[in-house]
Amino acid sequence: MKADLDHLMAARDLTAILVECSDHFSAARDYLTGGVSITQGKVIKKRAAPPILIVNPMETEEARKSGLHVYSYYDLGYADLLKEMKGDRDQATRAFWIKCLEAAGVPEGKVGIYGVGDHNVIIDIVARLGDQYPQYTFAGETGMTIFHEAFLTKDADELGRMRDIGVRVGKVLQATWDYIASHGARDQMVVKEDGSPLTVGAVKRFVRRTLLDHDLEDTDMIFAQGRDAGFPHSRGETPDAIKLGQSIVFDLFPRELGGGYHHDCTRTWCVGFAPDEVRQAYDQVMEAFDLSVEIIRPGMDAKAPQEAVQDYFEARGHKTSRSDPMTIEGYVHSLGHGLGMNVHERPLLSHLSTDKFQKGNIITIEPGLYYPERGFGVRIEDTFCINEQGELVSLTPFHKELVLPLKS
Amino acid sequence: MKADLDHLMAARDLTAILVECSDHFSAARDYLTGGVSITQGKVIKKRAAPPILIVNPMETEEARKSGLHVYSYYDLGYADLLKEMKGDRDQATRAFWIKCLEAAGVPEGKVGIYGVGDHNVIIDIVARLGDQYPQYTFAGETGMTIFHEAFLTKDADELGRMRDIGVRVGKVLQATWDYIASHGARDQMVVKEDGSPLTVGAVKRFVRRTLLDHDLEDTDMIFAQGRDAGFPHSRGETPDAIKLGQSIVFDLFPRELGGGYHHDCTRTWCVGFAPDEVRQAYDQVMEAFDLSVEIIRPGMDAKAPQEAVQDYFEARGHKTSRSDPMTIEGYVHSLGHGLGMNVHERPLLSHLSTDKFQKGNIITIEPGLYYPERGFGVRIEDTFCINEQGELVSLTPFHKELVLPLKS
Repeated sequence: MKADLDHLMAARDLTAILVECSDHFSAARDYLTGGVSITQGKVIKKRAAPPILIVNPMETEEARKSGLHVYSYYDLGYADLLKEMKGDRDQATRAFWIKCLEAAGVPEGKVGIYGVGDHNVIIDIVARLGDQYPQYTFAGETGMTIFHEAFLTKDADELGRMRDIGVRVGKVLQATWDYIASHGARDQMVVKEDGSPLTVGAVKRFVRRTLLDHDLEDTDMIFAQGRDAGFPHSRGETPDAIKLGQSIVFDLFPRELGGGYHHDCTRTWCVGFAPDEVRQAYDQVMEAFDLSVEIIRPGMDAKAPQEAVQDYFEARGHKTSRSDPMTIEGYVHSLGHGLGMNVHERPLLSHLSTDKFQKGNIITIEPGLYYPERGFGVRIEDTFCINEQGELVSLTPFHKELVLPLKS
Repeated sequence: MKADLDHLMAARDLTAILVECSDHFSAARDYLTGGVSITQGKVIKKRAAPPILIVNPMETEEARKSGLHVYSYYDLGYADLLKEMKGDRDQATRAFWIKCLEAAGVPEGKVGIYGVGDHNVIIDIVARLGDQYPQYTFAGETGMTIFHEAFLTKDADELGRMRDIGVRVGKVLQATWDYIASHGARDQMVVKEDGSPLTVGAVKRFVRRTLLDHDLEDTDMIFAQGRDAGFPHSRGETPDAIKLGQSIVFDLFPRELGGGYHHDCTRTWCVGFAPDEVRQAYDQVMEAFDLSVEIIRPGMDAKAPQEAVQDYFEARGHKTSRSDPMTIEGYVHSLGHGLGMNVHERPLLSHLSTDKFQKGNIITIEPGLYYPERGFGVRIEDTFCINEQGELVSLTPFHKELVLPLKS
């Protein structure tokens, strides 16, 4: 939780956190600022002090919406530095980093660098800063970073917000179901009133528009049919017609419009009817889903439900990424992951995970079975929280019917 | 241009380029691959060889759409490395970088690191790799990077694609104009049929949907009215009602859906009527726009039209960012910038720019005047190319009327 940050900084011996901003979404930036549309600048948090924001003068107005103290580049003398350095922007940029740290009350110490942007730029800046200003140590971090640790548990505000997003996503799923159902069929294809086929692209377009109606934005949904559905991360070919009796894996993980928290859920649909082998796989995936939901509780190793699901699938003759790490058939991925401002957070529900569940986690559970050469794939996914009572509660209010019947 | 890459690598003594991928959009990734939806992995280009792709097994199918040679993590033995390193993911990750470079035929040498992702991760990986594998030098780059240089000029395919995006954006502007015009007025506000006010948020929603209809996606448009319009990068307050006689700065810089090339254009609209001071500022901005378009030609310093526009505005009593770098009134930004897979590329049309114009540039021209305390701002922007004949040609087919009359 956000309230843990100072303590997490102390554990890493960090004097300050510096989030370098760009026009890419950064969860670290939005976590510290509450979410502001700034496309360059820095957020600096000294330990035991509130963050400050340093932005381009054009973005001061936007930055002030955060309620944090805002400095513009000119407040901190960027123009003078540029003059002093005779127009050498790289030199001026580095000297300006130091001015910003000083403005945050950090004249020396270990500074953790976060944010999202161009690898080439940050590598160069940090290497040179370290040489030039030995009073600082500039540190990166991999694995369970300070933000991963803070994101592990959500406070009541965050949970409320994510619950609300789940309700809106449920409405988008229902609208999409109804949209497809309103079509007819011809030659084993779903068709529009004029007899032309309903394509994957048309459905995706419908979903994106419906997301916008609920102030959500698509982050590259999966709507993949038949053989495509057999590859967990294939995006679905947009000109393909939707066909009867094909498994469609529909994985939607939208974000609040303009950046913020996510929801993540997957349904598998067969329009008109479900072939036996798809139905059989579906029933097994649902059993795996239910048995995971059954066992998860605070304090448990996050790998435990994955191992239980792998046991379950292996006992039924499926390969898993534990029994055969190279397989592309069977159950080939993790059971789930933490979710928040990033689609993938901790805890990891992989059989290699060293994480443990705790109250305040928001996670996905998403078992699946994939048989691309047999032309199908199946996955079911809900988002869950582990509440104050230690119960696992679904945040995805939408049914899990496999067969989507056409109305006409 | 893409064809220049080997030559640009030689100039930097780079044996290879490595683009580390994440779920953030990366122009470098899409430039080398033609645009594929992969959310992790690497693109490695050895000098004088085509790029190769290394991806998670789940994304091999997607990666193959690039037509490039694709390796999965398992092809290159990631699982074995993890076993060898006794589950230490960080160690295994670094050893795997080396395996990937070897697979690309790069056993040593200077490797330029590009792509977009978490600063903390890349800083840590590259620092440790450099210590651990002295046969390589891992280099970042700031300023005019190899991709900036390549992006400077667009080939015929890229120009064709960007011209087409411009046509689609022109249709979105027309639809938005017509949408607002279809409303009525009451108490100096634009109102819907039921008498409720038309809000900035409603217009933005309309624009986002219309963009999707043209397979474009919003990248955080500006639709800012009155005092807000007086700050170049204010996003516009969504619950605000649209009022008659207020200047609205509408800056749209959408991207091809799913990532790709951009268009960038701005219009200033006054619904119903334009107050005298807005009209006067508008006429001056149009003159500044026209005089820039008039003078730009290949070989010219990219700062020249900015200086001409600054001269023009200063002669009329406005402050500029040259005469007063701290001003937030007057003409406070650059005249424009290169445009492509990034919204901001080279050449820079700033008075501090050292770039020169050349054939194949795609640039924006966007003079503006801002008076937040007087409650208005004005900006006009088109995207242009400098064609093979050295002519500056607009790619933004939409009119520049200031007053948007309501139909009823």
